[in-house]
Amino acid sequence: MKIADIHTGLYTDFYELTMAQGYFLQGRQDEYACFDYFFRSNSFNSGFTVFAGLDDLSKLLDIFKFSQDDIRFLKEYGFDSHFLEYLANLSLSLSIHSVREGEIVFPNEPLVRVEGNIIELQLIETVLLNVLNFESLIATKARRIKMQAGSRPVIDFGLRRAQGLGGLQATRAAYIGGVEKTSNVFSAKFYEIPATGTIAHSWIQSYDDELTAFRDYARLFPENCILLIDTYDTLNSGLPNAITVAREMQEKGQQLFGVRLDSGDLEMLSKKTRQMLDENALDFVKIVASNQLDEHVIYKLNTQNAPIDAFGVGTSLVTGQDDPALDGVYKLAYAGHKPRMKFSENPAKTSLPGVKTIYRFLDDNKQFIGDGTCFDEYTPPAKRRFYKAPLGKELLDYNKAEFEKILFPFWIHGTPLNAKKPLKSILEFSEKRLEQLPDRYKPLQNAPDYPVAIEAAIVSLQTKTIAERKLKYQFKKQ
Amino acid sequence: MKIADIHTGLYTDFYELTMAQGYFLQGRQDEYACFDYFFRSNSFNSGFTVFAGLDDLSKLLDIFKFSQDDIRFLKEYGFDSHFLEYLANLSLSLSIHSVREGEIVFPNEPLVRVEGNIIELQLIETVLLNVLNFESLIATKARRIKMQAGSRPVIDFGLRRAQGLGGLQATRAAYIGGVEKTSNVFSAKFYEIPATGTIAHSWIQSYDDELTAFRDYARLFPENCILLIDTYDTLNSGLPNAITVAREMQEKGQQLFGVRLDSGDLEMLSKKTRQMLDENALDFVKIVASNQLDEHVIYKLNTQNAPIDAFGVGTSLVTGQDDPALDGVYKLAYAGHKPRMKFSENPAKTSLPGVKTIYRFLDDNKQFIGDGTCFDEYTPPAKRRFYKAPLGKELLDYNKAEFEKILFPFWIHGTPLNAKKPLKSILEFSEKRLEQLPDRYKPLQNAPDYPVAIEAAIVSLQTKTIAERKLKYQFKKQ
Repeated sequence: MKIADIHTGLYTDFYELTMAQGYFLQGRQDEYACFDYFFRSNSFNSGFTVFAGLDDLSKLLDIFKFSQDDIRFLKEYGFDSHFLEYLANLSLSLSIHSVREGEIVFPNEPLVRVEGNIIELQLIETVLLNVLNFESLIATKARRIKMQAGSRPVIDFGLRRAQGLGGLQATRAAYIGGVEKTSNVFSAKFYEIPATGTIAHSWIQSYDDELTAFRDYARLFPENCILLIDTYDTLNSGLPNAITVAREMQEKGQQLFGVRLDSGDLEMLSKKTRQMLDENALDFVKIVASNQLDEHVIYKLNTQNAPIDAFGVGTSLVTGQDDPALDGVYKLAYAGHKPRMKFSENPAKTSLPGVKTIYRFLDDNKQFIGDGTCFDEYTPPAKRRFYKAPLGKELLDYNKAEFEKILFPFWIHGTPLNAKKPLKSILEFSEKRLEQLPDRYKPLQNAPDYPVAIEAAIVSLQTKTIAERKLKYQFKKQ
Repeated sequence: MKIADIHTGLYTDFYELTMAQGYFLQGRQDEYACFDYFFRSNSFNSGFTVFAGLDDLSKLLDIFKFSQDDIRFLKEYGFDSHFLEYLANLSLSLSIHSVREGEIVFPNEPLVRVEGNIIELQLIETVLLNVLNFESLIATKARRIKMQAGSRPVIDFGLRRAQGLGGLQATRAAYIGGVEKTSNVFSAKFYEIPATGTIAHSWIQSYDDELTAFRDYARLFPENCILLIDTYDTLNSGLPNAITVAREMQEKGQQLFGVRLDSGDLEMLSKKTRQMLDENALDFVKIVASNQLDEHVIYKLNTQNAPIDAFGVGTSLVTGQDDPALDGVYKLAYAGHKPRMKFSENPAKTSLPGVKTIYRFLDDNKQFIGDGTCFDEYTPPAKRRFYKAPLGKELLDYNKAEFEKILFPFWIHGTPLNAKKPLKSILEFSEKRLEQLPDRYKPLQNAPDYPVAIEAAIVSLQTKTIAERKLKYQFKKQ
């Protein structure tokens, strides 16, 4: 799948371009700056978020350029010709430090730090937010669904209800979140994810009778054959016909793999289906369920002991239906040789100034204790003091704990450091990290807040900056 | 923007391919079939849906093919080599009848009818649903927001929180729904939509003081200059500084276009801002509001008489946040020389058999009275009888009303009939049609159901088919 003629210079908000021109006309195009990516709350009332989208972002940044046609387009909006010449010749020289893709992350931590000239950093804001917000949202949703499904496979059926082309990325993110297979063939090929699928209602409807439709399908596809049994009447027609076909297959030395329930009361239907299958010595035939599933429905089916062996999940998985946007932002932390911050009447929305990194603290069993955001300087964490965020007064004692820095170089001076990672290795990393998260942060709802702390030195800088500004007002008002 | 090497054969669900192979191996590749696209309920508790996505779908079908690389990929999944050869040579020959893009539509009507060989129809199911469901969702959301904004402009700010690449299509759909401008530069160019934008917080933060940041921006961009006033403190810093700059601009014979509020209590802030601007003889300076707006927030601001002149809307607009998927489906209606239907214990989910079209009935003022789905035959509507859907017994009397057929040929035998329509003409059509919808169907919530009827002949065929099947069971059970 070549994407040769697509490029992403214009994958941005218009104000990034006006600001970029402003910086350019002031001769600030080589000014060092630093932006942070972070989000303010976990989606879905989850206790954590699965960070995803980094490799897709890298691919889009790799093709970041302005074509001559783009330049002509911008000229019509009256952009300055020197600035447009600059854009036409621009190739990214920025650096990115980031938590690894698949990492388990929390609100109000600078997960991605972008450094370089202020113009480039401004121009890539939109594409960065677009990709990281969405893929992290869906990876998190997928993980929540997978946690309820446990060892039983979850299959992504969502492309038809996905948000347009976003569905292609949703499948990737779902895989990072633990969804094993997908119906989406495009993404299966593009991202190397196992594809799967058997029949829809239309196959059965296209026949005069259901039994012949099942027989024909089983004859053509005897391996991994799953028959959809709710086209006409699940218990009176679909299931009896599937049982007939399963027995005919047995006579040929074949095994029907499963039946799929796609409507109705899944608890009742799965129990009766299991019972009838077992009564016919077809205990090996699996029951696959679909139809508006999400983590809450699967949780409920679990409490009802519904004998379901695999779940096909669509809309909820690929759109994050009950909370379809992660609120990630990208805030300036350093520019014009100074740390910078945005103020807010809401202290939680006051941004963290300076060039920062994140330490994660671990107990003796390598379980996560808490995270601390601090200036990225050569001070060992044991010498640092951390306050509970946001802007709290509570001092956290991490000083005895083991720690690790969780931000790593990802792009350096315009060059991606790592070749594209196999998606499977991202998944495995994510699962390993999730095991390190204590279970108390993993309930379906109302998890306690994972401790996210801020280094005392950052809090001091915030406080000092706010106080200076207040003083300025007072002088002004007098 | 060339998309030369992208093609969409694999933009499908895996089971479409297994079914297609099944039809192929049975020699059914030239069998005529007909599928309908329809949805079951309006999103957002709306009284109507704005149909959108048709031209984007056409573009994707235009590049529907399987490359040699795709064929190799499918070979690994064990597909039959004759079938793969068929796919490699496949070029679409199907026909599509559809309501026009921008049309005001309702649940349970066959809005799009796809006819042709059953294999092609199966293969394009997923891409059709993906595009039409999403763009119709967002066009509807946009229209709902625009109806609350009235004559005041609405600007799409959503790309950063959109669902990945879906954000590119969201902007197009938003324009069809009445959103005048966008921050999304990619879509602005690709779809010819006006782009707009000024400054973010980062511009202001990158300076030592806000006043200099405003002055510089106003000097560089005196036209349509909108200053963002909430970076530090809206009423004590942002607004006074903006007023200073506005007066300095006046001295140069320039006018500050507006100020933007992006956080806090928008009612209070807009009122105080308006008052301070007016007290400084700056009544021409507009107030733009953003920050988590949707149709409900704008409705509330209207009831509070908040003096806001334009709205920037993001997440809610481009994701349809409170209801982020339209439940459109694609059901087989004809195959194997017979009308076909799917049964359901829920009569509303029983599909309509046969090759159908939609009549829309109008009163003397050209206002919509109701719609009727009927067989697409040369019987004048006055000779047809209509039952209120779904499967009701109530006969609707449309016989005296004026009527129009609202399905039109769109693709015929693999060829799109109309060149790409200018987006503006789709918008204008949609607005004209919305004027024909009586106001009682337009409240923010809890609109009455618009009458959607089914021709008596279709109901008879449904009833007969269901009865025959019941009879079959009885024989079986005896």
